Order: sequence, then structure tokens, then C-alpha cells
Amino acid sequence: MRGVHIHRIDVRFGDCDPAGIVYFPRFFHLFHEAMETWFSAGLGLSYAQLILGRKLGFPAVHTEADFNAPCALGEAIAVELRVARLGRSSIGLDYVVRGVDGVLRLTGASTCVVMDLDPASPGFRRAVALPGDLRARIERFMAGESAVPEDS
Amino acid sequence: MRGVHIHRIDVRFGDCDPAGIVYFPRFFHLFHEAMETWFSAGLGLSYAQLILGRKLGFPAVHTEADFNAPCALGEAIAVELRVARLGRSSIGLDYVVRGVDGVLRLTGASTCVVMDLDPASPGFRRAVALPGDLRARIERFMAGESAVPEDS
Amino acid sequence: MRGVHIHRIDVRFGDCDPAGIVYFPRFFHLFHEAMETWFSAGLGLSYAQLILGRKLGFPAVHTEADFNAPCALGEAIAVELRVARLGRSSIGLDYVVRGVDGVLRLTGASTCVVMDLDPASPGFRRAVALPGDLRARIERFMAGESAVPEDS
Amino acid sequence: MRGVHIHRIDVRFGDCDPAGIVYFPRFFHLFHEAMETWFSAGLGLSYAQLILGRKLGFPAVHTEADFNAPCALGEAIAVELRVARLGRSSIGLDYVVRGVDGVLRLTGASTCVVMDLDPASPGFRRAVALPGDLRARIERFMAGESAVPEDS
Repeated sequence: MRGVHIHRIDVRFGDCDPAGIVYFPRFFHLFHEAMETWFSAGLGLSYAQLILGRKLGFPAVHTEADFNAPCALGEAIAVELRVARLGRSSIGLDYVVRGVDGVLRLTGASTCVVMDLDPASPGFRRAVALPGDLRARIERFMAGESAVPEDS
Repeated sequence: MRGVHIHRIDVRFGDCDPAGIVYFPRFFHLFHEAMETWFSAGLGLSYAQLILGRKLGFPAVHTEADFNAPCALGEAIAVELRVARLGRSSIGLDYVVRGVDGVLRLTGASTCVVMDLDPASPGFRRAVALPGDLRARIERFMAGESAVPEDS
Repeated sequence: MRGVHIHRIDVRFGDCDPAGIVYFPRFFHLFHEAMETWFSAGLGLSYAQLILGRKLGFPAVHTEADFNAPCALGEAIAVELRVARLGRSSIGLDYVVRGVDGVLRLTGASTCVVMDLDPASPGFRRAVALPGDLRARIERFMAGESAVPEDS
Repeated sequence: MRGVHIHRIDVRFGDCDPAGIVYFPRFFHLFHEAMETWFSAGLGLSYAQLILGRKLGFPAVHTEADFNAPCALGEAIAVELRVARLGRSSIGLDYVVRGVDGVLRLTGASTCVVMDLDPASPGFRRAVALPGDLRARIERFMAGESAVPEDS
């Protein structure tokens, strides 16, 4: 699928609650993991390098989820990530989670801002404009082009 | 405050991410904890007894959060819970998180359904009507009356 | 390597603490995940099916870890699992975690007992003898033979 | 009790696994929380201030636990923390977890080192000697004296 990043996971014992299904706060961690693997697989950038090297963060300013059906211990599920919006300093992402059977389990959405994480910077913990190289990579992803890894 | 349950927590090391602030999926766990303490302190019912004894669950069908300001390691914060809606088999809850200084950090909302968790029941993992005693206790909470503990 | 199961993971943002390294309680979750993937990949059994279908659990009665070097955000690491002991109703597992560079990060060990998780059984939440088929599969794993998946 | 710090918690839904009991990696998080509340209540120091202000960390080099009985959803439990050893740059802590009924659930132990977390320091991420004021406060705690809070 063009413009879609897929993050697959197996539901583990520690993901599940006493009802035997994924404890719902856990899905927001899975959304975040999907975003991290999207940076590398979809954009050709290392999320860790952005955080630790370039000192950029991507905190959520809004997030939400609608739950259609539970995910149980042992199931294989896939998080599909799509870019919904690109703002001056924000990225809107949509998530769809399906079982290996293709059946919809939940949908989600989040809006992240690009934040300056450099304690030495005057803009520390403030939003900054999306860097040009990152915007260009996201636009290539949205157009269905393969990611070109950075020199590292 | 009438009709408000307050769940206080201190932000711990293990709640925080490499940016030194609460990892946002963690807030949905805090919302759930606030709901659990609301059952006992606000409604006079044991959440564990509802789950394990009466075999009722309260899974979220929708949840969301809007983040205004981060919560940092060592901060004392309070989750305020209010009842936004009572449906036939659903409960809508609103959350406001403030620092000990009163400054808004995030707001949230969730809709839970009452679910049959009895594997022996024909309605296993289906929504059921909110039991009458639970509805009455929630209405008393909304009216600002103190909770009367169940015989236990 | 004979008799070794390898579980690879990438260190994610949500695994790390404000010091930017894996929050150490998280490693016990990784050990448990390694055990879960060992059941399927090493023994040819579904962990979920054992828990949910055969109603057997594998709670730890002892666990420990020695930390040599931290694991940082973005690192690829591998958990190596070996069987240290097989008792009448217990399984001793050893863990070694290395970076993708082969450098030792931590070692761990745990002893699990096989527990009856069937609420309808007189032995509910008590230790039971390791079932014969499970013991045979573990012995084949220890001897370096490939797992034969169960009919499922 | 002299020289004992007690950290009480209620077992929440999100602490529990599909067997309805605390997922055992979670206890290491509770041990860490007990250490954090010991710094403030037992030593009169803010753990957050040590980490963020003085840039000292306390990573575990060894940790272990022995599980006697499970802790179930809804239970009130208490973690007792005692100082087992004080080294030049290490602190050995013992943990005992009991239910509100006094019945032993698990014991644990950990050894932490004092680590330099200042990225600008030549000793970054290396062990440092336990600062004198911290040692004095720990010795007063071990002798059963009340903590005197720092000026802050």
C-alpha cells in the first residue's frame, strides 16, 4: 500500500490485563513504536538519532483511539500508520490496527509537534518548524516512494 | 468540589521517558487508576469485586487526551474525574490533570461500556445494561452526595 | 548455537528512563517475552494455547539479573535463553543479553513452576508436574534438535 | 520499625496479567518506587532533585526476587525497604512485600551504584563515591532517626 507503514507485533502476556486482552493504554505505546519504526523503515531516519543526536522530540499534543474489538494474548496484529496532516511544526498520524485475519480492532490518531530538546537552546521544550529534510522525507513517503537511508 | 473525584500521584522515575517527562501512554494508565479509585472512594464499590466477583468489565470504546504542558519527574499531580454522560450501558468520563500548582497539564475523556466478563454466560464479552445499583451510586456521586460503602 | 533461543528486540523510547537507558524492570519483561517466543520457536508450542487452552501458567518463583552495561535508546539487542535445569514441576532458565556488537549487557536467571490455572480444578494456582509432552520438547531443545510444531 | 521504610500500594488492574495477579516484572518497578519514596520520607532528600539537580543516578547492578505468594487485583500491599549494605559507591537494599494481612508475598534485594549522570563530566555514566551528606543521611536512617528535610 502506498503511503502506509506497517508495524507488526505479537500480543504478549505482559501486554494483557486480567480480562485476557490488551490493556488499552498499551495501544498508545504500540502507536508510538509504530511511529519509531516508521522513522527508520518509512523515512530512512533513525528516531534515536533525531532524539539523541539532533535533539528533536515529537511529543503528542493530541491522541485518541476508538476500540472496535479486543486483541487477545497470542494474536498477531498489525498497526498501519498513515500521515494525515503535515503542519508547520506538527505531524498528524492515523493508525489502524487489524488482526492477522484483517479484521479491524481499533483506530487511532495523534498529532505530534516537533520540539527542541536541547537544554542549551533558548527554545528548549518549545515547538520548532519541521526541518526541511524531515518534511521532504515525509512527503516522499506520502507519495509512495521508498525511503533512502541517511548516511550514518 | 461536587461530583469530582481526585486521584493524586507523584511522578516516578519509571513513568518518565528519555525527555524526562511522563511518557504519554502512561497517562491513560493514570486515567484508569483514577477510575479504579473513583469506584471505591466516589461510589463505595470495590472495582476488584466488580471485576472478579460480579464479573463485570469496563473496557474503553473511545479515549482521547489533549496535552497542554508536560509533567516532569518528581512532580505531584492530580487527576480530576467527572462523569460526562451515563448511557444505557456506557459511562462517559472526563479527566483534567493539574500540577500541585493548579496549572493545567492535560485533559482527557473516555467512554467505557459495561461488559459481561463471565465465560459461562451467553453474553460473554458483550455489553450489558448498567446494573441499577451502580447507576444509582453514580447518580448520587454526580449530585455531590458521599459514597456509602457496600457491605463487604 | 545448540540449545539456545535468541529473541531480538530494538530498544524503544518507551523502554527508556530519564537517563536515556532501558529502565531495568523492563528487562524482566524482555526475559518473559524471550520465554514466550522460545515456546513457539524453540519448542513448537503456543504459549497462549498453553495458558488459555491447557490452562497452565509458568509463574516465576525466583528471578535475578546482573547488569554489566546499559542498553540505550535505538540499540538492537538480543536475549539468549538457555535451559539451566528441569525439575519435576520447575524450569530454570538462564538469560544473556548482548548488543548487536556482541558486547555483554546483562545476565539473568529465573526459575518458573508449572501452575494449574484452571479455576474449576482442585489444584487451582498450585504447582503441577511438568506435562510429559512439554518435558520431551524441552529435552529435544536442549539437545539442539529443531522444534516440531503441534497440530493446531 | 527502626530502619525500615514502608511503601504502600494498592494493586491496580494495569499491574495484573491474564492470570489476575501482579505481572512479576512489575514488582521491580514497585521496588524502585519504594526506593524513590524512601529518599524523600526516609532520608529527607528529593530523588528527582538528586537526578535532575545533582545529576546523580542510582542504577541497579544486581537485583533479585523470590516469590512466595501472588498479589491479586484489589489487594493492598506494603513494600518494606531496609538497607543491607553501604559500600564506597554502592547501596544494598532489601525488600519484603506483605499483604495488608501481614502474609509474606515476596522478598527482593538490589544493589545500586551511585552514577555520575552529568554529560559534561569526565566521569559521565561512571560510578562515583557516595556523597558524604547522602551517606550521613542513610546512616541516620539505619540508626532509626527521623529524616530532616533539606532546604529546598
